[in-house]
Amino acid sequence: MRFLSEEDSAALITEELAYNAVRTALIAAVADTSTTFPALPAHASQPHNRFTVKSAAATDVAGVKIGSYWPNNTTTPRHNSTILLLDQETGKIAAVVEAATVNAYRTAAADAVAADTLANPDATTLTIFGTGHQAYYECTALARIRTLTTIHVVARTPEHGRTLVDRLHEAGLPATLTEPEQAVGAADIIVTATTARTPLFDAEWVTRGTHVASMGSDAKGKQELPPALLDDAALFCDLPPQSRTIGEFQHTTTQHRITALGNVLTGTAPGRRDEDSITIFDSSGIALQDLYTATALLAEQ
Amino acid sequence: MRFLSEEDSAALITEELAYNAVRTALIAAVADTSTTFPALPAHASQPHNRFTVKSAAATDVAGVKIGSYWPNNTTTPRHNSTILLLDQETGKIAAVVEAATVNAYRTAAADAVAADTLANPDATTLTIFGTGHQAYYECTALARIRTLTTIHVVARTPEHGRTLVDRLHEAGLPATLTEPEQAVGAADIIVTATTARTPLFDAEWVTRGTHVASMGSDAKGKQELPPALLDDAALFCDLPPQSRTIGEFQHTTTQHRITALGNVLTGTAPGRRDEDSITIFDSSGIALQDLYTATALLAEQ
Repeated sequence: MRFLSEEDSAALITEELAYNAVRTALIAAVADTSTTFPALPAHASQPHNRFTVKSAAATDVAGVKIGSYWPNNTTTPRHNSTILLLDQETGKIAAVVEAATVNAYRTAAADAVAADTLANPDATTLTIFGTGHQAYYECTALARIRTLTTIHVVARTPEHGRTLVDRLHEAGLPATLTEPEQAVGAADIIVTATTARTPLFDAEWVTRGTHVASMGSDAKGKQELPPALLDDAALFCDLPPQSRTIGEFQHTTTQHRITALGNVLTGTAPGRRDEDSITIFDSSGIALQDLYTATALLAEQ
Repeated sequence: MRFLSEEDSAALITEELAYNAVRTALIAAVADTSTTFPALPAHASQPHNRFTVKSAAATDVAGVKIGSYWPNNTTTPRHNSTILLLDQETGKIAAVVEAATVNAYRTAAADAVAADTLANPDATTLTIFGTGHQAYYECTALARIRTLTTIHVVARTPEHGRTLVDRLHEAGLPATLTEPEQAVGAADIIVTATTARTPLFDAEWVTRGTHVASMGSDAKGKQELPPALLDDAALFCDLPPQSRTIGEFQHTTTQHRITALGNVLTGTAPGRRDEDSITIFDSSGIALQDLYTATALLAEQ
């Protein structure tokens, strides 16, 4: 069995590797030969310490990702992630990859692939809701696919917002702490990376042509976007059945048409209709992203 | 992260360790503080290569077991098993234990704990249906808890039956190849360890006082026992909801009363009523067995 420790995988991961692996995964997810099994929510001895088991198989990979969330961790990360690849010849576990840092890259990469496909080419202003671990990675991944001249950080706790702004400045990115209505109105791209259970902003604040990505909704009861926005936008996601179950699109009805991003990437479904459309991408996260990322990391080692 | 390879875990496992760990697990399974999450059936790139993900948490363990079945393996084992223990402090994976051989011991240990609890104390004659990998371990585990004077091996393929008989002889056990009706009629304990999807014998062949264990039913559609026997017997299993879903007791109705073995072990439910009762134990296998076995192996290392 091969093993990549957290240190190993964190040293190998790059935004480019994650982008390419996740793009491959999103395309594989819509193939008839792929199966994404239902995400299994579980918990540890203390029920507030939760983990999710996600499994999938495509033509060339199969395995399991265990993502954990220990909300009370202070000295160690709250999120952890471990990826297991099956040896297709024997059925044994071929590789175990510790992937906490990798997970931040792979999640942000889905955002980047979606925005690269769906946002207007001349998008320059990003608004980010959330100041947690993931928010920073979302900004840097998007800065790689669009020339960002402004990043508006919307923070529930201003102190946390200022910390994120400082980190983005250190990375050479033009960030500022902004109030929600102004930040939404100015945005070409809005990303929500929160644990919210109620909408973060008003639908009417959003201007035509904006691309919106909900990155934080990955469990029943979570909600980041105003429902009225869903009626007025073209809806895209990683995996429609999962998005309707645990993603942002659990708040849609059967009337809403949802397109898998993989079908846009392969040209079998339309993406953005025109520059005035509002597009929404919901990322609840699928195991194939992890399996292809782990495979790419192992190939680099 | 700690890692026990297949060689490590196979060198450490003993029938006694497995018996004690599985007994602890069966008791923990009925505690209010334990949760066994739904077993998730999945498959690899080739859909005939299947794996099941089982997860659980009790007061002192939490984790995941991945059991795989590659039916066409010839030079490597068809069954493989990997156990992952969560670090309760951090949410990271604390240990990975390769457990193919261990799995055979832990499955047979459930049979042994159940038979020790439910079979008549003077049981001496064992009948085993099945000649696969697991059958041998079932026999040796039962020989540890009852003085077996005869083991009747019932084989669909006589050649495979003779191989098992030879292996049991080598282990010092008195085995013989026997026809089904005669073997069932002579048995004090019947164990079925097959992949059957239809009953293996007639209910009327079973004599009063027999203890029956279905070890092979662990997926929808599997069936080893004649339905009429279920009506006439006291029914026990590792975990009733799972047994009704994927175990032998998927063939019961709501009329059938099923007792978790853990409640018998703790004295909160009755076991065998009298020496003439027929008792049935259904083992579909629960993650807590794996988690406690892995914990015990790590403590030995």
